[in-house]
Amino acid sequence: MKHTAFFISDSTGITAETLGKALLSQFPKIKFKKLTIPYVNSLDKARETVMQINQVSRKDQAKVLVFSTLANPEMRSILADCDGMVMDFFDILIGPLEEELQSKYAKEVGKLHKMPDLKTYDARIAAIDFALNADDGINVKNYKNADVILIGVSRSGKTPTCLYLALKFAIRAANYPITEENINISHLPKDLIPYRKKLFGLTITSARLHEIREQRRPNSSYAKLAQCQKELKTVEQIFKKEKIPYLDSTAFSIEELATKITQIKKITRHGL
Amino acid sequence: MKHTAFFISDSTGITAETLGKALLSQFPKIKFKKLTIPYVNSLDKARETVMQINQVSRKDQAKVLVFSTLANPEMRSILADCDGMVMDFFDILIGPLEEELQSKYAKEVGKLHKMPDLKTYDARIAAIDFALNADDGINVKNYKNADVILIGVSRSGKTPTCLYLALKFAIRAANYPITEENINISHLPKDLIPYRKKLFGLTITSARLHEIREQRRPNSSYAKLAQCQKELKTVEQIFKKEKIPYLDSTAFSIEELATKITQIKKITRHGL
Repeated sequence: MKHTAFFISDSTGITAETLGKALLSQFPKIKFKKLTIPYVNSLDKARETVMQINQVSRKDQAKVLVFSTLANPEMRSILADCDGMVMDFFDILIGPLEEELQSKYAKEVGKLHKMPDLKTYDARIAAIDFALNADDGINVKNYKNADVILIGVSRSGKTPTCLYLALKFAIRAANYPITEENINISHLPKDLIPYRKKLFGLTITSARLHEIREQRRPNSSYAKLAQCQKELKTVEQIFKKEKIPYLDSTAFSIEELATKITQIKKITRHGL
Repeated sequence: MKHTAFFISDSTGITAETLGKALLSQFPKIKFKKLTIPYVNSLDKARETVMQINQVSRKDQAKVLVFSTLANPEMRSILADCDGMVMDFFDILIGPLEEELQSKYAKEVGKLHKMPDLKTYDARIAAIDFALNADDGINVKNYKNADVILIGVSRSGKTPTCLYLALKFAIRAANYPITEENINISHLPKDLIPYRKKLFGLTITSARLHEIREQRRPNSSYAKLAQCQKELKTVEQIFKKEKIPYLDSTAFSIEELATKITQIKKITRHGL
């Protein structure tokens, strides 16, 4: 018996989906079919959504679950009349908040992921420009303006993490590859020496690195397991010897890596 | 009187923060000081967090607000004893879900933004590689593999939107700048003609574009308001003439642009 879960939002649906999926993942034995409907931001769209839910509900044997973040009380009350079990994150908390704050809420829709102030927005864009202009060891001269510099072997997750740090947290992250040419446990690559305090290492298991590199360049010497093992061993020795904090990217999502790096390096997150 | 709001999570804190801030933004007249504590994933860390909240609580005149997503019931009960008003998104919904699903939940911490399956992860990384290799009009030969191609004048928001589509939704997005050299309302740039169905336009107000370009190249002819107006007028004519769907990036966050594009172009979101 499969449950259908809807994630409904008057904005992007990203938060309803993330939180809803996290709740569902606590029931690993149950199968869920997941559907997201963003921008339910008018009474008509709310009614349309109810029809969609009811249609699924008539076919499904199991109860349809509905996770929503709707700021508008009229839309919420339309949705509440559908045949699914509706859990609205706003509905549940806005009442207690109004009471505590002794204030009525604004009922503005689309506030999640709404355009933040221009200053924050500009900082995000500047951080993205920075990451693109300091990717993969280019423009070392920009490192003086970096908040953090990620180092590690090729395909250890540096670029996605830098981009996420920029996009989500407005953090200026550069990245520098440790390659066969500059790998040397007796000293750091020359480019990095002045910025020792900004360095953060990424490592990865050799099996996973081998797999990723094989996808990229099948049967190359670059992708060979022995080559991956050798590079990773050296790079981890450097991290330890130079006391560079580092994480294994194998088990963490990009969001987790980015968050852990800001925590360990004590860098302020902006822009959310 | 200022309220301090804590966003507490056993994972990255991104969801607790997004949802908490959205709720608070419904009270625009009240000032909030906002603090995020990620990775509260042990009983000790939960106790430490309570001490931190209580310390703030003793100083603040107004009640401290605590938004949290803690999957572990023991941690939640520790947090519940702090001096703030605690709203845990899990706590509120897990009970009703257990009842509906007739199943006990797994109590696993750190499920939000947890590493998804490898297939989804690889798709995100591949999409990021794609975006970087098809940024700013380079490698037009890759366009056959694109899910969408964003077009618009320089600094209209194409690159951040492409990167977000890749990072968050595993969508392969290319972007192509419409410049003085290739702008012509009588025909699309030659490179784009075979991919007409994949095109999506971005525009922006001339005032905002002028401001962004001035920050980048002060006093250049590129940044002049008249130049911005001219380019935008032509590009919007092209969008209309060629029936290319488009959005004005001035008023939307990167998340909103990305979501709206997937909706309008009916592209499936993956990877969340």
